[in-house]
Amino acid sequence: MTAWHAPPPLAPNTLDDGVPSSEYAEVMTPQAELIERLKTLLGPKGYLHEAMDVEPFARDWRGRVGATPFVAMPSTTEEVAAVVKAAHEAGVPLVPQGGNSGMVRGSLPQNEIVLSLRRMNKIREISPQNDSIIAEAGVILTQVQDAAKEAGRLFPLSLGAEGVATIGGLVSTNAGGVAVLRYGMMRDLVFGLEVVLADGRIWNGLRTLRKDNTGYDLKQLFIGAEGTLGIVTAAALKLFPLPAAKMTAMCALTSLDAVVPFLPIAKSMSGGAVTGYELMGHQGVEFVLEHVPDTRFPFTPAPEWSLLLEMSFGREDGARDTIEAVLAAGMEEGLISDAVIAQSDAQSLMFWKVRDSHSEGEKKDGRGVHHDISSPVAAVPDLIRGAMAAGGQLVPSARFVAFGHAGDGNIHFTVKPPKGLAGGMTEDEVVAIHDEVQHAVHDSTMRLGGSISAEHGIGMMKRDELAERRSPLEMELLRTIKRTLDPAGTLNPGRVVK
Amino acid sequence: MTAWHAPPPLAPNTLDDGVPSSEYAEVMTPQAELIERLKTLLGPKGYLHEAMDVEPFARDWRGRVGATPFVAMPSTTEEVAAVVKAAHEAGVPLVPQGGNSGMVRGSLPQNEIVLSLRRMNKIREISPQNDSIIAEAGVILTQVQDAAKEAGRLFPLSLGAEGVATIGGLVSTNAGGVAVLRYGMMRDLVFGLEVVLADGRIWNGLRTLRKDNTGYDLKQLFIGAEGTLGIVTAAALKLFPLPAAKMTAMCALTSLDAVVPFLPIAKSMSGGAVTGYELMGHQGVEFVLEHVPDTRFPFTPAPEWSLLLEMSFGREDGARDTIEAVLAAGMEEGLISDAVIAQSDAQSLMFWKVRDSHSEGEKKDGRGVHHDISSPVAAVPDLIRGAMAAGGQLVPSARFVAFGHAGDGNIHFTVKPPKGLAGGMTEDEVVAIHDEVQHAVHDSTMRLGGSISAEHGIGMMKRDELAERRSPLEMELLRTIKRTLDPAGTLNPGRVVK
Repeated sequence: MTAWHAPPPLAPNTLDDGVPSSEYAEVMTPQAELIERLKTLLGPKGYLHEAMDVEPFARDWRGRVGATPFVAMPSTTEEVAAVVKAAHEAGVPLVPQGGNSGMVRGSLPQNEIVLSLRRMNKIREISPQNDSIIAEAGVILTQVQDAAKEAGRLFPLSLGAEGVATIGGLVSTNAGGVAVLRYGMMRDLVFGLEVVLADGRIWNGLRTLRKDNTGYDLKQLFIGAEGTLGIVTAAALKLFPLPAAKMTAMCALTSLDAVVPFLPIAKSMSGGAVTGYELMGHQGVEFVLEHVPDTRFPFTPAPEWSLLLEMSFGREDGARDTIEAVLAAGMEEGLISDAVIAQSDAQSLMFWKVRDSHSEGEKKDGRGVHHDISSPVAAVPDLIRGAMAAGGQLVPSARFVAFGHAGDGNIHFTVKPPKGLAGGMTEDEVVAIHDEVQHAVHDSTMRLGGSISAEHGIGMMKRDELAERRSPLEMELLRTIKRTLDPAGTLNPGRVVK
Repeated sequence: MTAWHAPPPLAPNTLDDGVPSSEYAEVMTPQAELIERLKTLLGPKGYLHEAMDVEPFARDWRGRVGATPFVAMPSTTEEVAAVVKAAHEAGVPLVPQGGNSGMVRGSLPQNEIVLSLRRMNKIREISPQNDSIIAEAGVILTQVQDAAKEAGRLFPLSLGAEGVATIGGLVSTNAGGVAVLRYGMMRDLVFGLEVVLADGRIWNGLRTLRKDNTGYDLKQLFIGAEGTLGIVTAAALKLFPLPAAKMTAMCALTSLDAVVPFLPIAKSMSGGAVTGYELMGHQGVEFVLEHVPDTRFPFTPAPEWSLLLEMSFGREDGARDTIEAVLAAGMEEGLISDAVIAQSDAQSLMFWKVRDSHSEGEKKDGRGVHHDISSPVAAVPDLIRGAMAAGGQLVPSARFVAFGHAGDGNIHFTVKPPKGLAGGMTEDEVVAIHDEVQHAVHDSTMRLGGSISAEHGIGMMKRDELAERRSPLEMELLRTIKRTLDPAGTLNPGRVVK
């Protein structure tokens, strides 16, 4: 059994015996052999092999391009197990993939076989009385949200890619999104998992117990492991009561610093009803208004710093009074200079559309250097100022897009070249020093005890930087866990840790 | 380096060379040697060695007696690390201990050296703006609750032993208690940990980030591991807004089955404000009223099934209306026959006192066979009926105490002999078949997909049963993790897994 950490040999003269491979027309690489085996295993509906068919699986939404010779598409847990077992026996790596909406090249194949979970798309069970739902890995997030709603419940995870992202991927990346403040990350929403281990054995940990202190909590190992320790095939998830009323307000902050003291005011006065606390710098808002059709904003010009505040209430009555009281308190304390409460669902959706279109608006404006950083909540202004200072040193007069989940300490931050500035750096010049910029911003983040990947994960993109940033002891622990659970290294090799 | 899984040799003739140990007055066992080394390491204030002094560390609150020759009492993380390193080098086991309020003989020494964390008792940092507190392992739960309250915040974990239990123990056992429904178990309240690994190295994972997706989430390994994978020396914990108002009601349920459909009504109508949902059978209430001084109950006689309902609100106004509406809905649906809303803090405290005195009341009545079982919330009535049927088969006309966190699916269940029944089993006879009774109750629990230890953990008491109940694959994973993180087996050996 050989572990393959690199793309399989494709060029001639790569066979071990030194004889040119052209002499061995019949000899196949281990990967090619595995592909034949998987074809038999899965049948014609269970795989894709034509270049045209596999191409979309080797390209991510940011347009980054990888390559894959073959996409295995099992539709049952047993089929997933058979694929993983065969790969394990052959020592040939697999790259698991859900909706392929990741940000860090975690599921973009580099010539590996793709294990797509999309055909594992059944909701196995929903129990409103137990506030639980069991969904297979390939179920799309909006489908779970809709199923919960139909049953009179809320599945709170919500993020930009929710129409594409799958449950397996969301579990494997411990997804965040816009409701973390109140409901937590995906990790907090998982009751139990079904996982295919590296050797193809199936671990059935699909419990729906709220309390179970019987031994080490195995599921925690697989949540956020980006498919490097096991393949999540199904998840039992927590549901919540649907809020009776939601109130949304767009606020103009008097300063960046105001974002910190306003949060405990909003939380305390509403008794923890704050479900959205999204900060937006003016640059991001301007990109949205300029580039994304049908967007409007209540303030002109966009304030230096805006805040989208959302509160969810169990009872209709008093909801409006509460958000009004919170906003009044913010003004009294000199934290807010202006605020608009959405008067309709349409207006509330427009506030959220501006927020959710930030990535699109910024992308349409051109390229830049992206970051997904976090700090303790109280340090968010320092996090942003530090990132700006670091970026500005390398890109003079840079434009900065800073927005995101201020209530969780998580900011998405982009450094862009100045526009129309004589002698200023061009987009190409900024992209050319991508790593340098990112390193400087991350240095600044780490000085605040922050994280260089708050919700996007590590993948291949941040793997080497993770190894630099973490203590040798911590890296040793990560590698030990990887080695213990995937000794042959066939599960998403080269992602998270090397 | 030798791993010691059993008490060290104390009797003569146990040395390897076959020469009676009496001939070797100067030769010490590895444990005795380690004790001398620890004395030097810790200085006179840092240990207990007299029989009288160590005795309380070898006896748990249920009166079970173990034995220990020595209690190491380090006061800093570095001292803990030095102790653990010395034990690792000597291959001599340590039993970590916090408040010693565990239920499953997880920290009761069997001749091992005790590593007491009680002198690690500093609150290192509290940040209301970040809603975080960093407390050392030996800090008592009420101290953290009080510190949070002084800062205008809530630390929600709350349980019977809160005046004794320490943060390290609560993390290591993933403690539950009466606020899990709204705030989760201890696992959900941890930002980060500081842990001394089995070889004495210190892992500093004391972050206070709400979002951090950088590699496997190492802290999860140590939470709930009962000190078998590392020694928790400090924890960064989450704080919450203090509720503005609490409403408490005692309800008489029309039947056991009513406990399931009433929960979603209470949750939905209050928008998730339910913070307590505690079920009590009549027998437990009667034991409390009979044996615990100064206890009163609003219903006479105690209903077959009572429910303590607590709601916590962010705003004062409307709180009473909400609980009244919830109770009215429960009556309309035929789920509740009577209910009393506490009119004062004193009355609310009395409702809780009856609930919290269940263990005491039952203990004062005599011995029995205890269980800490859980099921999916919707299956709680079947969980209880199944347990009663199983217990009743072995103990005819048994009395049953069933109470606990019905909102989390967790019931504490005791089988007691009948009282004053001619020809009925005696207390001694019931205790004599303890294991048989427990096995039958757990069999019934497992048929519902439940847990044989919802919040108390495994320790030594349920270790062998865990191994029987779990799949071989799951046990292999548990043992692999243990072996990987504690290869020499010096950390709390024999607990959780063998």
